[in-house]
Order: sequence, then C-alpha cells, then structure tokens
Amino acid sequence: MSGYGKYFPRSEKIYVEGSRPDIRVPFREIRLHGDNDNLRLYDVSGPYTDPSYEPDLKQGLPAIRSEWIAERGDTEVHLSNVAILSNADKAFQGLERQPLRAKAGKTVTQMAYARQGTVTPEMEYIAIREHVAPEFVRAEVAAGRAVIPLNINHPEAEPMIIGRKFRTKVNANIGNSALGSSIEEEVDKMQWSTLWGADTVMDLSTGADIHDTREWIVRNSPTPIGTVPLYQALKKIDDDADGLSWELYRDTLIEQAEQGIDYFTIHAGVLRNIIPHAKKRQLGIVSRGGSVLAKWMMDNDSENFLYTHFREICEIMARYDITFSLGDGLRPGCIEDANDEAQLAELKTLGELTKIAWEYDVQVMIEGPGHVPLDKIKENMDLQLQDCFEAPFYTLGPLVTDCAPGYDHVNSAIGGAVIGWYGTSMLCYVTPKEHLGLPNRADVKEGVIVHKIAAHAADLAKGVPGSMDRDIAMTKARREFRWEDQYNLSFDPHRAREYRRESLPPEERDQVDQHYCSMCGERYCSMRISEEIRKS
Amino acid sequence: MSGYGKYFPRSEKIYVEGSRPDIRVPFREIRLHGDNDNLRLYDVSGPYTDPSYEPDLKQGLPAIRSEWIAERGDTEVHLSNVAILSNADKAFQGLERQPLRAKAGKTVTQMAYARQGTVTPEMEYIAIREHVAPEFVRAEVAAGRAVIPLNINHPEAEPMIIGRKFRTKVNANIGNSALGSSIEEEVDKMQWSTLWGADTVMDLSTGADIHDTREWIVRNSPTPIGTVPLYQALKKIDDDADGLSWELYRDTLIEQAEQGIDYFTIHAGVLRNIIPHAKKRQLGIVSRGGSVLAKWMMDNDSENFLYTHFREICEIMARYDITFSLGDGLRPGCIEDANDEAQLAELKTLGELTKIAWEYDVQVMIEGPGHVPLDKIKENMDLQLQDCFEAPFYTLGPLVTDCAPGYDHVNSAIGGAVIGWYGTSMLCYVTPKEHLGLPNRADVKEGVIVHKIAAHAADLAKGVPGSMDRDIAMTKARREFRWEDQYNLSFDPHRAREYRRESLPPEERDQVDQHYCSMCGERYCSMRISEEIRKS
Repeated sequence: MSGYGKYFPRSEKIYVEGSRPDIRVPFREIRLHGDNDNLRLYDVSGPYTDPSYEPDLKQGLPAIRSEWIAERGDTEVHLSNVAILSNADKAFQGLERQPLRAKAGKTVTQMAYARQGTVTPEMEYIAIREHVAPEFVRAEVAAGRAVIPLNINHPEAEPMIIGRKFRTKVNANIGNSALGSSIEEEVDKMQWSTLWGADTVMDLSTGADIHDTREWIVRNSPTPIGTVPLYQALKKIDDDADGLSWELYRDTLIEQAEQGIDYFTIHAGVLRNIIPHAKKRQLGIVSRGGSVLAKWMMDNDSENFLYTHFREICEIMARYDITFSLGDGLRPGCIEDANDEAQLAELKTLGELTKIAWEYDVQVMIEGPGHVPLDKIKENMDLQLQDCFEAPFYTLGPLVTDCAPGYDHVNSAIGGAVIGWYGTSMLCYVTPKEHLGLPNRADVKEGVIVHKIAAHAADLAKGVPGSMDRDIAMTKARREFRWEDQYNLSFDPHRAREYRRESLPPEERDQVDQHYCSMCGERYCSMRISEEIRKS
Repeated sequence: MSGYGKYFPRSEKIYVEGSRPDIRVPFREIRLHGDNDNLRLYDVSGPYTDPSYEPDLKQGLPAIRSEWIAERGDTEVHLSNVAILSNADKAFQGLERQPLRAKAGKTVTQMAYARQGTVTPEMEYIAIREHVAPEFVRAEVAAGRAVIPLNINHPEAEPMIIGRKFRTKVNANIGNSALGSSIEEEVDKMQWSTLWGADTVMDLSTGADIHDTREWIVRNSPTPIGTVPLYQALKKIDDDADGLSWELYRDTLIEQAEQGIDYFTIHAGVLRNIIPHAKKRQLGIVSRGGSVLAKWMMDNDSENFLYTHFREICEIMARYDITFSLGDGLRPGCIEDANDEAQLAELKTLGELTKIAWEYDVQVMIEGPGHVPLDKIKENMDLQLQDCFEAPFYTLGPLVTDCAPGYDHVNSAIGGAVIGWYGTSMLCYVTPKEHLGLPNRADVKEGVIVHKIAAHAADLAKGVPGSMDRDIAMTKARREFRWEDQYNLSFDPHRAREYRRESLPPEERDQVDQHYCSMCGERYCSMRISEEIRKS
C-alpha cells in the first residue's frame, strides 16, 4: 500500500534527483498493467503521500529549501517587533527556526536572481517538474512572464511556477469565516485540496484565530500559501473599517511575511476616480477587499492607501520574496458588468503597478474575474497581456452565466478552461457552494477536480510539454480494455471504479477483464468491433 | 402548489396563445418576490407540469398537432404490412389513432411548406417560443439552417426548432441495454429528463422490448424523439450483423416512422474507402453504428447500404417528415484522433448527402464529435458549416480531454459551451457515467443540467433573443438579497437552497432575509457594502 492510499491505487511517489542530491523532485507514478510504461504525473501532495514520511503536524514539514536559502548568504534572522507581539500565542513553540529577511542592500527574490542570470536550485527543481530546461525557467521569471511564489520563510514549500508557458495551475481557497470551522478543519482542508491537486492554497480566514490558523497551515503546507492581508488587518480592529490605516496594514504584512506567506492579494488598483463607474454597475463591487477599500476612501475622502504606499509595500515584498497577486477589486460580479469601464480601468492601473514592482525585482501576478460571458473572455485576456506586460493572469473562473448556483463549479470550469487556453496561468477554483456558503470537504474535492480537468484541457490546447502523455495512456488503456488502468489514470479513481461497478450486474462487479461496458453491452461494443477491424 | 411541484417552487405553467386558439405555447413563469416582473422561461416539460392535466400513460399525451396535420389535407391513414407484424404486441390497444403517411405526390415536411412560403402553425408556435418572427422561422427552415423534427405520427410533440440562430438545445439519451432497465424506467427517464429541460430525447434501447419501449416513450413524450434504427434492425436478427440487409433496415425505418419517431440517426457517411484511415487511428471507430457498418462492409465486400440506398431513405423520411440526423460514425474517440482524415472525409460525405436530402425537402442535421481538444473545436465547427452548407450541427460534447471518467459531464459541458457558442445547434448530453456504464436517474438529471448551463452560456455569448433575461433577474435578486428568488431562478432550486441552508448555523437555516451569506459573513459582505456605496 503506497502513501497515496485508497485514493490513488497503484500510484507511487518517486523522486527525480537534480544536479545536487538535495534537489529531489516528487512525481506520482501510476503503475500500469501489462508491459506499459508507468505514467509520471506532476505531484503536489507533498511528503504526506510518501510512505516513508511520518507526519507530525506540530513540527511541520521538512524545510527542504533552508539550505539553498542559507547558501546564498543574503538573508539574516530578524524578528520584527510587530511579529513578537502577535506571535505571543504562536502555535509552533517547538520549532527553533527564526524568521529571515534580506540583509540590508540585498534582494532575495527569484526575479532578482533570474535577472542576474542565476539559475537557482528552485528553478532547476521547477524545470524538472515541468519538463523544460532550467534556463527557460530563469528567462521566463526574469521577463516577468512567470512567478515562483516562495517566501524565504516558507522553506517547507516545494518550488513551483505560475506562468502561461507552463502547466496551468489551480488554487483552492480555504479559511474559516465568522460563521464557523476550526483550525484542524482548515489544515485538513489544505491537505485534502493538495491531495486532489491544488497547486497553491489561499487562506482566506476572517474568523477567530487567524494568526494561529495560518501558522498551522503554512508549516504543514507543501504548496505556496496566499492570503488577503486586509482581512486580518480588519480583524485586528474588530472589523471596523474606519480604523484602517497604512501602519496597521503594514504591520500585518510584516507579520504574515515572517510567517512565510508566499503571495499576497493586494487591492492597490481600486482608485477613487473609478468609484463613480462602479456605482453605475448592476452589481457594484463584489470583491470583499475592493468594497471595503472603496468605502474607506469615500468615508475618509482619501486615495487608496495601498496605492499611495505601493513602493513601501514593494520594499517589504522584496525583503521576503513575496509575490504580488494584484487584486481585482473591481472584477465584474455579473455578466452585465463584464469588461466594463471600472474593470478595465483597474486593469490598466494594475499594469502600472506591475512596472513599479518590477523595479524592485518583486514578482507579480494579476488577478482576474469573475463573471464574463464566453464571447468577452478573449478580449479580457488580450487586454491583460497587453496592459500588464504579460505578467501571469490568475482568474476566478470566470463564470459564464449568473444562473448556476449549486453548479458554479461547472460554470467556472467552462470559463476557466477557455481562459486557460487563451493564456491564464492559474485558475482559482470555485466550488458547488459558490454564492451560497462555505465549502465542506466534499465541495473542496469537487471544486479542485473540475478545475484540474479545466486546466488540463487548457494545457492540451496550448500544447504544454508532457500534457498529452496522460491522454495517450488513457486511450491505450481504453483500446486494451484495461479497466483498472482507466480508473487509475482518471482524476478520481475511486469514483470511476464505483460508477462502473454500480452499473454492472452483481456477479460481474468484481471482474475487471470484461471487453465491454454496460453502456452498449458486449455484442455492440464498438471498441471490441474496432479491434476486430484493426486486426483484419 | 403548481404542477412543477417541489422541483420548481413558485413556477407556474402559462400558455401564450397564437393567431388561433389551438396554438397555445407553454412557458414556465417564475413568480418573483416584490414588485419584480415574473420571469418567463422556455418550457419543455409538457402537460405533466400543468396542474389541470391528469396524466394517463396508457392513453398518452393529447395530440395537439392532429388538427393542423389534418387541415393540410396531404396525409392519409396507412398501416404498412411491416408495422402490423411488429405491432402485434402494441402497448396502446386503447388508442384509436392510425398511422399517417403522405398522400401520393405530396410532401409533408416542414421544409417543403417553408420553401413554398407557408408559415405553418408549428412555425408560429416556435416563433412565440423563441421570441422571433414566424417569417424568420420559416426562412431558416427553408434555407436548411434549422430543422423542426416533427413526425406526422407524433402529434403529441410540442413544436421546437434546432438551428444556430435559435436557443441552443440539449438532447438526453435514454434506453435500455442488454444489461438491464425496464420500460417503466425508460418512460420515467424521458419524463425526468424533460422536467430538467431536455429539448429532445433519444431512445437508444438495444435490449428487450425495443418496440414497446419506444411506443410508450413516443406516446408520452412532449419533446421530439430520436432513434438509431440500426440498433433495432440488429436486434431483429439476434445481434448478428451478418444478417443485415437493406430490406431489413428499410422495414425498421417504416415501423419506427409509423410509431412517430421524429429524427433518425443514420450512419450513411461511413464509406468503404475511409476504413483504411480509421484503422490507422489510435481508437478506431467508437460509434456503435459506425463500427457495425464498417465490419459489415468488410465482411460483405460491399459499400455501406445506407449510402447506396440513400435516395430511398429520403423518400421514406419525406413521407412522414422525419428529420435526418446524419450520424458521425467516424467521430474521434480520443484527443489524438480529433479532426483526422477519417472524420473530415466523412463530414464531406455528410454534406453531399445533405444536398440530396434537400432535393426531397427532407430536413437534415449533422452529428458531430466526440473527443476534441479546445484548440481544434473551431476548425471542426467551421468545416461543418462549410461542408454541410450550414445544416444544424448536433454534437456529443465534445469532450476536451480523455482523462475525466466520472466527471465527463463537466468535460463535455466545457466543450459543449464552446462549440455551442461557435455555432452548434444542439448538444447531446453526457452523464457522469460516460465511458463507464448506463446512467441512473441522478446521472440523467446531472447530465441535463450541466448541459443546460453550457447551452445557456453559448446563448449568452451568441446573443440569442431573451437569453439575458434570466441573468438580469438573477443579478437583481442578488443585489436585493432575495434568496428565495435566487434559488428559484437557478437550474436546480432545491440544490441551491439546500447548499445554502447546510452552511448556515441551525438557528438561521429557515430565515431567508439575511443580507449576507456564510462565505464572508455579515460584516464583510461586499454586496451589503456595495449597496451602501451606491446609496451614498
């Protein structure tokens, strides 16, 4: 029994070693029947699926990058005043590791290294994962067309890249809200979503224990973690937006930077002059962050402090190698508002901010909608590439209709596949609960899987290296009636197996060698007949 | 309590009368709260959702078109020898109605009427359903760009149209196989799928009681019914394809024509000279009909008898106004085979056959794939329009990856939304059981709904008249926190309601007036804040 347990039968964790023994890139290898080559898949489930690994949530995952970071000699231990105060209740008392930051005068971002011509161990690791050359990874990061979201304080994370010339990624949102869910549940959701293939996880907690919840998640997460720091800033002032200030926000950034958050959603593009346009919309501002900031600007008769302090934010991001996920506070919340003036004006602002961040060698991705009908997706994607200088696009869906509550995961998979094909680098998952409530465990799984399918469809259409291998293996398994292999090659082997079993007569349920399925029965099986034709 | 019962709360059946009192076009009207206009939706659920209707499955539905057909004076009662023999076990002993056919020298197809410049009651009915002018319906049918699949022996069916300038339609496949399911189950599946919005239903039975199953389905179906007559022809010779002959097939067509089947899938485009190309494929011929015919041609060293007898088939189709659904026997069964020589050669042949059918004023649609990656869908759609002279395209999916068993309904919804937007007129649903087994009741519902969402997304993108109304109403309901209306405007009100309820604390579950949801909680609700901004 492998570490993938019952979820992925006949899958085993393997590692491919790079140019040095501590570059060990994990893959999930599916052991196919007969004399077929095993299929090697990109794997984000972390050490949990390695049978030799003994998890201890209170110790967190092994810090696989610590040595690489230390070798570069450009960081120093530094715990800010801010962090000490808020870390009083730190969950990981046992961990000796102290927060790092860049030494004075040093820039520790992957973009800085890339621009200097250095291929870091992180880049080599990614090159092996993505079946490309390390130099190609470096060049894409240097150009800003791809990001490697890896905070120097999250050495547990396995390096990964987000960019449109690489495998399309999927993000899963987790996080408690005022209405419930515990720390253990959130850590479990993180593990659960990476088991099914989430490439990054955003902790969007707005309820109790935000700091501790995050600590548990980061220390145990093999994937990059993103947050929306504004949520915690608001929490610190009892959700009273009147109390928001640059200083409060800055301290929250630093606190989270020291914990190891890999990317921050920052709504710096919601400007005062766009609010009148947003007021004309059918559905106003549907982004939580965007609406809070718009209200604050109106109440305080001031420009967005994230915009006015943007260069200071860049300095903080550079110090820890945190990637910007420039938030689309003005994303459309309904089909009628898609690609409107408010949205497109913000996109241009995000492009200007991208240029500024790049001055600091800070990595940037751009968040996107939202609700967009199929015929307007290409325009949105093309404008993003143009206005934001090819910085990676990271979209929520888009949903292609407003009318699918209960099925918004499918709605989002439709829009996500299309925008992924056009050039989006990461899809934020949407679960069946979207617009209705917080997802449970089953919703998280469903949301991740349908977006993995959408992302894979985008990869096939774009011709991402290696993406056809799985389809080729599935086709051969179909041709040869290798049912077990068909199950195991799917995104959810257990479901595929159960669905076939339940439609077979009881006496045949545990056979796996039938040369037909219950859709057509044996005599009408086109696959069987085709095989006869082929052989004739 | 309306006839839509628990499935669609606050929905009521209404009828819009045409130029004569027996043109009564059904709509489902959703009663919204407050002073909002009711939303009127296209409705295919038939009299079953009319609370004044008392169903009697043994009598079948009211024959709403009998008078229109009789008035034209171009039909006569005629029961063929073929039909009498096979009707010995006829299920509807009580029905006095006898089969009709065209009088000698008359053509009774909607295409013939349209070309003569006549707007039939059927066309007027459709114009009201589709929010267009009757003359527009006539012109599209005359040009072959749309079909009205209505056998004169299925007078129970509510007129509907399939064409790319109209609402995108969804077909649901039902039918028993050698491995199980009963007549009652199949009739129930037909009603069930139309309740959720299937615009047509194909009876693909290959098991026992094919004739009776079909009789029950047709007599009780408010939507057009399609079949693949080859399946029954094979059944008559104990599934031994060696016994296939034109005479056997012809008699089966006539038998089904007299029962009232509205469209036939006929694989007349699978020609001998394409077989060598098909043999080179990764997955050969995955169409049941296509593979049986290919085998027959090889075994008998003969051309496809459906091709050589195509004009005789047209004469039969014309006599009853049956629409061709020219089968894509060579559709690709995997991503690797998409848009290959075999598929595209067949498409050209289907175009030639379309021209021939049109000589007989017989309506034609063209079946399409299958498995096609996103980047090849447009090419396939454009070639279909060109090679088949804009005859409506009716596609199965396409699936955009081979690796999604258990989730192929989502896979198909992705491809279906895209090809629908590009110009496909009807999507054949795919259920979660695709590639694995026969769908059960829950699978049928899931399959129909996700394809309704895909078709609706296509309609929004194409700007089909009236399609935005539902999204506009949903957006307004969201803005005003009318939760009940949001549920009722969705494709599955019960699911939307349950999903929201289960994520609320128990004491709030039966409230419907919260101005927030559990995703963000009250204080962070962007919708609430947006409303404050709007009002300020």
